[in-house]
Amino acid sequence: MYTINDLGAIGGLLSWDQQTIMPRKGAAVRGAHLATLASLSHRMFTDEAIGKLLDEAEPYVATLPEDSFEASLVRLVRREWTKARQVPNELASELAEAGAAGYNAWLSARPNNDFAAFLPYLEKNIELKYRYIDCFKDHTGPAYDLLLDDFEQGLTSDEVTPVFDRLKVGLRPLIDLVNSKLDSVDDAALRDGNFPADKQKEMLWKLIQVFGVNDQGWRLDPTAHPFASGAGTTDIRITTRYNEKNLAMAFYGTIHETGHGIYEEGIDPALERSPLCRGCSMILHESQSRLLENMVGRSRPFLTYAYPLLEEYFPGAFDSVETIYRAANKMEPSLIRVEADELTYPLHIIIRYEIERDLFGGSLKAKDLPEAWNAKVKEYLGIDVPNDSDGVLQDVHWSDGLFGYFPTYALGTLVGVQIWERIRQEIPGIDEQFVNGSYLPLREWLRVNLHQYGRKFTPKRTIEMVAGGPLDAEPFLRYITTKVEDLYGPVAR
Amino acid sequence: MYTINDLGAIGGLLSWDQQTIMPRKGAAVRGAHLATLASLSHRMFTDEAIGKLLDEAEPYVATLPEDSFEASLVRLVRREWTKARQVPNELASELAEAGAAGYNAWLSARPNNDFAAFLPYLEKNIELKYRYIDCFKDHTGPAYDLLLDDFEQGLTSDEVTPVFDRLKVGLRPLIDLVNSKLDSVDDAALRDGNFPADKQKEMLWKLIQVFGVNDQGWRLDPTAHPFASGAGTTDIRITTRYNEKNLAMAFYGTIHETGHGIYEEGIDPALERSPLCRGCSMILHESQSRLLENMVGRSRPFLTYAYPLLEEYFPGAFDSVETIYRAANKMEPSLIRVEADELTYPLHIIIRYEIERDLFGGSLKAKDLPEAWNAKVKEYLGIDVPNDSDGVLQDVHWSDGLFGYFPTYALGTLVGVQIWERIRQEIPGIDEQFVNGSYLPLREWLRVNLHQYGRKFTPKRTIEMVAGGPLDAEPFLRYITTKVEDLYGPVAR
Repeated sequence: MYTINDLGAIGGLLSWDQQTIMPRKGAAVRGAHLATLASLSHRMFTDEAIGKLLDEAEPYVATLPEDSFEASLVRLVRREWTKARQVPNELASELAEAGAAGYNAWLSARPNNDFAAFLPYLEKNIELKYRYIDCFKDHTGPAYDLLLDDFEQGLTSDEVTPVFDRLKVGLRPLIDLVNSKLDSVDDAALRDGNFPADKQKEMLWKLIQVFGVNDQGWRLDPTAHPFASGAGTTDIRITTRYNEKNLAMAFYGTIHETGHGIYEEGIDPALERSPLCRGCSMILHESQSRLLENMVGRSRPFLTYAYPLLEEYFPGAFDSVETIYRAANKMEPSLIRVEADELTYPLHIIIRYEIERDLFGGSLKAKDLPEAWNAKVKEYLGIDVPNDSDGVLQDVHWSDGLFGYFPTYALGTLVGVQIWERIRQEIPGIDEQFVNGSYLPLREWLRVNLHQYGRKFTPKRTIEMVAGGPLDAEPFLRYITTKVEDLYGPVAR
Repeated sequence: MYTINDLGAIGGLLSWDQQTIMPRKGAAVRGAHLATLASLSHRMFTDEAIGKLLDEAEPYVATLPEDSFEASLVRLVRREWTKARQVPNELASELAEAGAAGYNAWLSARPNNDFAAFLPYLEKNIELKYRYIDCFKDHTGPAYDLLLDDFEQGLTSDEVTPVFDRLKVGLRPLIDLVNSKLDSVDDAALRDGNFPADKQKEMLWKLIQVFGVNDQGWRLDPTAHPFASGAGTTDIRITTRYNEKNLAMAFYGTIHETGHGIYEEGIDPALERSPLCRGCSMILHESQSRLLENMVGRSRPFLTYAYPLLEEYFPGAFDSVETIYRAANKMEPSLIRVEADELTYPLHIIIRYEIERDLFGGSLKAKDLPEAWNAKVKEYLGIDVPNDSDGVLQDVHWSDGLFGYFPTYALGTLVGVQIWERIRQEIPGIDEQFVNGSYLPLREWLRVNLHQYGRKFTPKRTIEMVAGGPLDAEPFLRYITTKVEDLYGPVAR
């Protein structure tokens, strides 16, 4: 029963190795090994036999509590099996190949600022996604919702659009305020200093131990693109990228990935090796990384705690906690999503969401993407896009056929703040705890209220359990307004 | 067609990770993942369908040259499939479980010097091996030959016994000579110095680049037990163990594993990912590691070349090339196989071989192993065994059910010298090349005459191709006599 899931976990470890420590020349064989695992598990998973097993299990699990291991497992596997069975193997292979080809084309198109060279690959990806959508004869509602569902089960554009529309309105005055006072916050101490990579690594490894990280169950390695991975709840591997001028990159990157890591580590060990043993969804995973990175990591109490450690490793780099706090929270509309601050990040996502929705709603053609992109960046962020490299070509996702993924980033942040509001009510004195280096009560709250469940319940239900309600933009708007006012003064209301 | 072989390679990478960099707590899940891969590929490989494919391919490959990829592949797979099909899945699982249990028992029995606690596990392993042997109804000849064949296809005790008997006779006077002059060679400079691990690592990484090792296709990592592994010809991973007093451990260990590594790297890339893409056999693999470690690595020309590098990293540690040469070649009968010198090493193997042969010939019972062991050590090496920890319990192999493995170590050494004699005839001026740091002509000879073929031909045929004849003890006896006389003076004839 564990075989298919094991193959997935093994593939994850192979990818970790590939991105982290593999000798460069090993890439071709590694690609082949990963393809073998993917095709083998796809073949095994979509077999008729799985359906028979599910049918046989159904009457038995009907007698069990819905949160039992068996009932949850049958529910989850039934849903994924049913979805996977509707996609022919050939189309699945074509999608994978077009994604790989698109990724390669993007690798050169972006530095060459050459959208035209990238366009045919993008069109191929979109065409195949339409064929993918056509596989689901019973689907009602917008075609795009099927793609959203691939990344966040049950998420629909009917649910996302109003939340994002609310954000657009709510963030407008905050962005105007920040734009009018750009020079009032200085981040040079954090982003234009001298931070040797080995010192950063040593310091960060020490720092994240407050979250329960240790060398018995974790690794921290350098990579070009940071990520969290692992081979089970007892083998968690996070990576980070060091910039010797800009400490913020590894500092917040590492805390972000630690958030993903403690989610995986906190899953009930009884679920180990089963399909339930994973963070529940993209949104929930991102809620955990964002909570640790932003709500915790950019707070005064945390930075007060971290200050002596920063002083020890980088003496004189920061003249006070307040210097770091302001630098870590400086806001300024900018072109690149992955470098965006807390305030403007959601707008980067909204731009991508609206473009994806229109692409798969039929009102936008791939060739018109740059124009649509630049118009939205101007409208939402007030910036002129100077070239496609820093515009529509900046992200890897679409090259690889990943449409429907972006929204989970911003929605994860919103859910993170929803959870954060509950935590602040339920853990009295949490700010003092943070100042004193006590982060395990926070972690325990997250374990009990979220991590332990893995994928036992649907994402929607799990969000409601841990956040106390459905997706909601208001907590984030309250949170970010408070922070903007703290740094930039009162907002006109 | 590549799937099953890919699963094997993936398992190899998982084992590498487990032994090298995995967080300690990941062990249980890793064990389960490895078991999943092993059972999946065993199930796929022993399927009736493979036999059908072979039958279908047979008429076509009959029209091809015997050294063609397809003909070699069908020959190899036919042989392995036929052997695997005779072993029921349940027995294969039982063997794996008993091996794992035996290994665990050994882990505590050895340090506790407790053969009695280990005995039941050993008996279980032996009993299961007898059941394994019984699966092969058509087998004629000694039962033990089936076990030899598992590690070296086609090897029989009829072939091994005379070679080992010749060695016992031929080595006798050399050992007597060495025993009479133990103090005439001093190895303190090499084995009782101060060699920081990071300096060793840096120096060795530089050193092995003369053999064509580089960071594009290789890794070198520290482990408790050194080994060579990898995920294909383009991703070779060797490990080593650093002892800060004894430089010989990492120095010769690393060169040894490099020999294994260049064998795998040198296989024809056209064989990549197929079952042919592996060193041909245990004996041939060991011939390559021993050739590099001993015939090259312990030679004056090589040490003359390495001396400036050693001086750079460990200034003053060695007062001359001659000091290192003598230290690296000091001989002395001792208790522990893995620490044995070139002269006495084969006798450690002969002891194990004779015991295995008698165990599976019916003339020796497991419970009488310590007695038999101690008697042979006394007879062949002239040493009293003080306890089982340093005696019959010293090696891991039998705990894991690996009977028939040991002989390949010594036979690999013999074949290594057979090849070495040919190389010295065919590469004129090789000593000068070595002094000058030119090792790629040696490597190219090995690639052309051995490495490229992978498993295209049987081990027996491959040995004859590369060594110019069958297994032969005489070249080794000539080689070791010359070395002993160089260090200890003339041997009585």
